[in-house]
Amino acid sequence: MKKGLLIVNTGNGKGKTTSALGQAFRAMGHQLNVCMIQFIKGSWKYGELNSKDRFNGLLDFHVMGKGFTFKSNNLEEDINIARKGWEIAKAALKSEKYFMVILDEFTYLLNYEFIGMDEVTACIQQRREDLHVIITGRDAPQSIIETADLVTIMEEFKHPLKAGVKAQRGIEF
Amino acid sequence: MKKGLLIVNTGNGKGKTTSALGQAFRAMGHQLNVCMIQFIKGSWKYGELNSKDRFNGLLDFHVMGKGFTFKSNNLEEDINIARKGWEIAKAALKSEKYFMVILDEFTYLLNYEFIGMDEVTACIQQRREDLHVIITGRDAPQSIIETADLVTIMEEFKHPLKAGVKAQRGIEF
Repeated sequence: MKKGLLIVNTGNGKGKTTSALGQAFRAMGHQLNVCMIQFIKGSWKYGELNSKDRFNGLLDFHVMGKGFTFKSNNLEEDINIARKGWEIAKAALKSEKYFMVILDEFTYLLNYEFIGMDEVTACIQQRREDLHVIITGRDAPQSIIETADLVTIMEEFKHPLKAGVKAQRGIEF
Repeated sequence: MKKGLLIVNTGNGKGKTTSALGQAFRAMGHQLNVCMIQFIKGSWKYGELNSKDRFNGLLDFHVMGKGFTFKSNNLEEDINIARKGWEIAKAALKSEKYFMVILDEFTYLLNYEFIGMDEVTACIQQRREDLHVIITGRDAPQSIIETADLVTIMEEFKHPLKAGVKAQRGIEF
């Protein structure tokens, strides 16, 4: 049995979630099951949500409640949403079903200390041995980086939104 | 009409092609046509080639000959393959069909001077105005970066292959 990898996509640039999406499609091309938990509302957009429907049954997709927005001004509610997502993640990390589990925009929960770093590290290390895990989000904590097998830092170099180009269908969503 | 973006994924890390793949699936989720030209053999792997078949008709996929390997020891043949690929790309850049054209691993052709930088920059600037173009590959030349609307640099931080982990089905291919 091959050891599952922990892959981290971090940095301030584009491509953290999109690259995980590409990995999911790669895996599903092999008829392998993927579990994707989206911790921030809208990080997967209409385009890929529509695309995933072409892979009936291979992708289990979870969005946390109405999503975790940091705008609710209700800390207790945000923490509850985060913890519900983490419970789903913990079950997925132990499940026999999946080839890959994607914890999308997960770093925010850690950086805001909505869930404990020690518990997360332990659950990742004690996951099903051949399960691949992808964690995306800015500012990945040091302990996640140290646990990871592969860390890619996406750095923004020049950004159209900063130049006043509006978000476009099929590109940004 | 919205201006098409030139997006460049460069750097030595993972995720340059995978992120473009994710963008393609995002666009196809909107029923938009994508043209993908693979200049280096095998940069799209079995998993995604199989996945793309679920989007019948939306993706036109071109692999250059047996692919461009840098191993042929036949410079003339490599240049011919590169130029054939570039001819397909030029037609795609003018076509009315596509929402997005992906020139995967294209930077190598420029860095090896198999095609002229001035011609490439001119064709990209004179493309159909609302066409999005994604160029991937290491060491994107300065003039491409200057022309781009969005450049993401994928930096490798820690790599499982270096630690002796073998390539795995569904992850690396």
